[in-house]
Amino acid sequence: MTRPALADRVLSGDVRAIARAISLIEDEAPVAADLMRAIYPHTGRSYLVGITGPPGAGKSTLVDKLTAETRSHGETVGVIAVDPSSPFTGGAILGDRVRMQAHSADPDVFIRSMATRGQLGGLSRSTTDVALVLDAAGKSLVIIETVGVGQDEVDIVRTADVSVVIMVPGTGDEVQALKAGIMEIADIFVVNKADRDGADRTVTAVESNLALQSYTESEWRPPILKTEASTGRGVPELWDAIKTFRAHSEAGRVRRLKSRSEFRMRELLTHGFLNHLEQHVFAPGELQQVLERIAARETDPYSASAQILRRALK
Amino acid sequence: MTRPALADRVLSGDVRAIARAISLIEDEAPVAADLMRAIYPHTGRSYLVGITGPPGAGKSTLVDKLTAETRSHGETVGVIAVDPSSPFTGGAILGDRVRMQAHSADPDVFIRSMATRGQLGGLSRSTTDVALVLDAAGKSLVIIETVGVGQDEVDIVRTADVSVVIMVPGTGDEVQALKAGIMEIADIFVVNKADRDGADRTVTAVESNLALQSYTESEWRPPILKTEASTGRGVPELWDAIKTFRAHSEAGRVRRLKSRSEFRMRELLTHGFLNHLEQHVFAPGELQQVLERIAARETDPYSASAQILRRALK
Repeated sequence: MTRPALADRVLSGDVRAIARAISLIEDEAPVAADLMRAIYPHTGRSYLVGITGPPGAGKSTLVDKLTAETRSHGETVGVIAVDPSSPFTGGAILGDRVRMQAHSADPDVFIRSMATRGQLGGLSRSTTDVALVLDAAGKSLVIIETVGVGQDEVDIVRTADVSVVIMVPGTGDEVQALKAGIMEIADIFVVNKADRDGADRTVTAVESNLALQSYTESEWRPPILKTEASTGRGVPELWDAIKTFRAHSEAGRVRRLKSRSEFRMRELLTHGFLNHLEQHVFAPGELQQVLERIAARETDPYSASAQILRRALK
Repeated sequence: MTRPALADRVLSGDVRAIARAISLIEDEAPVAADLMRAIYPHTGRSYLVGITGPPGAGKSTLVDKLTAETRSHGETVGVIAVDPSSPFTGGAILGDRVRMQAHSADPDVFIRSMATRGQLGGLSRSTTDVALVLDAAGKSLVIIETVGVGQDEVDIVRTADVSVVIMVPGTGDEVQALKAGIMEIADIFVVNKADRDGADRTVTAVESNLALQSYTESEWRPPILKTEASTGRGVPELWDAIKTFRAHSEAGRVRRLKSRSEFRMRELLTHGFLNHLEQHVFAPGELQQVLERIAARETDPYSASAQILRRALK
C-alpha cells in the first residue's frame, strides 16, 4: 500500500487506516512523516479536549460517559488515552480492551490507548500526531486523557483547546496534588466521585484557590463541577461547560493552535537533530567512548557537547 | 568575582558560593557552563539518593529525618527538593523556609528547593547540575526529592544511585498510582504514615506486585519498609536499607553514572541546538512567521522542521 493511498483512506475516516497510521506513528516509522505531511492540510477542524487528573480519579470512566453524551449530540469522537505502562500491570493493553467495550459497535467513536514507553518527549510527540490523524479522519471532537503531573502530560493538556482537570474528594492530600502545577492550566475543574465524603471540601479548596486569582470581567473563570462518572451524573453539565468555554474562547483559539505548532516544531527539531547526530556525526561507537571518558572524568559533558555541536552545526 | 574563584570556593564547600552557583544554573547564565566545566573533574564522589512519591506522602518530613539520621553517622548532606511551583501557592519559596529550619545551624547540610518553572526538560537539566555542585562541594550524600509521576521526575530518580519510592496507606488509589510507571524504578519501597489504617494493605499490594516479577538470587529485590516520618520511626532502617543497596550495587554504579552522563549529554545537545537555531539560523521574526503559516495550513510542521534542519546542519 503506498502512502498517498493510506492518507486518502485516513481522510475518508476508514477505521483500519486510522489504526494503521497510528501504529506507524508509534513505531516512529520513517513513512509516518510523509503521511503527516499529506494529511496536515486537512487538520485543524477537531476540537481538542484535554482531560487530566491523578491516578484513581476515574478519568477513563468519565471519558466513556462524556463520549456517550457527546455522541447523543451528534459529535464524532476520537479518544486518546495515555496510559502510563508498567511491566507489573501490562499497562495500556488491558486498558484498551476495557475501554473499547462500551463503544465497540459505534463506527463514529475511535478509541486508542497509548503507553508511555519512551522517554525524551516521545509521549507528547506521538500523542500530538495521533490527535492530528483523528482530526484528519473527521472526528469533530478529540479527547486526550492523561495522568496529569509530569511536564509531558501537562504540555499535552496545555496545548488542547480546553483543559479539564479532574479531582477526587479527599483528605487534603488531593488539594496538595493541585500544587503540582496543574491548577493553572485548568479551564474547567471537575470533582469526580462526588458522592464520596469530602467532595464539598474539595470544591471549597479549589474555590478558595481560585479566589486568590483576580479575573477581569471578560476573563474566563474556571467553573468547578461535580460528577459521578459511574452513574453519569453531572456529565451533561460537563459537556455544557465545555461548549460554553468553546464559545467564550473562540477568539483565543488561533493562539492555542500556534502554541501547539510551536511545541510540535521544537519536538521535531530536537528529534531530527539527535537522529542526525546518530546517523551522520558520530562514528560507530563514538558516543559510547565519549560517555566512558565522561564517566572516567577525562572530559565533561559540557565540553563534549560543545565540541559535538561545533562539528554538527553550520 | 571571576569564575575560577567561584569554582574554587564551591570546591572548598563555601555555602555562599554554592548558593551563588545554583542561582547561576537556575538562571541559565552563560557562565554556568564554565563553572560546571571547572568543577566537573571533582565530581562523582557523592552518593545520589532519589526519593519520589505522590504529593502528600510526607516526602519532605522523611527527607528531614533521613538527613538527621545520616548526619549522626557522619555523612555530609545536600538536599535538592524539586517543588512543583504554582502561582496559586507560591511554590518552592515557602517550602524552602520551612525546610531550612531543622538544619539551619548545621554547616554540613545544604538544602535547596527548586521550582519547576520551565518546560522542555529544564527541570532535569538544572537538577542534575545542582547535584554536581553539591557533589563538588564535598557532600558525601546528595538527596533529590521529587513528586514522582511525570517523565522528567522519573528520569531524575532513575539516574540516581538509589531510587526510593514513597507511598501512603490507603484505599487502593495509591496502588493505582504505582501503575504510573514508578514501581519499576524503585530500589527501595517505603510506606510512610505507617500508623494509618491501610498501611499493611499497601505493603501487601506492593508485595504481590513484586511477586509477579522474577528475581534471580544475585538480583536485588526491593525491600518494603514502613516509616512514620513525623516521629522518625523506621528512618534508621531506611538508612540501613540504603547502605545495603549501596554495597550490593557497587558493581553496577559505573553503568548508572554512564546512563546519567548520556541523559545529560542529550539535554545539553538539544538545548544547545535550539539556542543555535534562535541565534544563528532564524532571521528575526522568522519562527513566528513559520508558525503563522503552519496555523494557516500553508505549510506543515514536518516540512518546515525538515527545511530548518537542512539549513542548520552540516
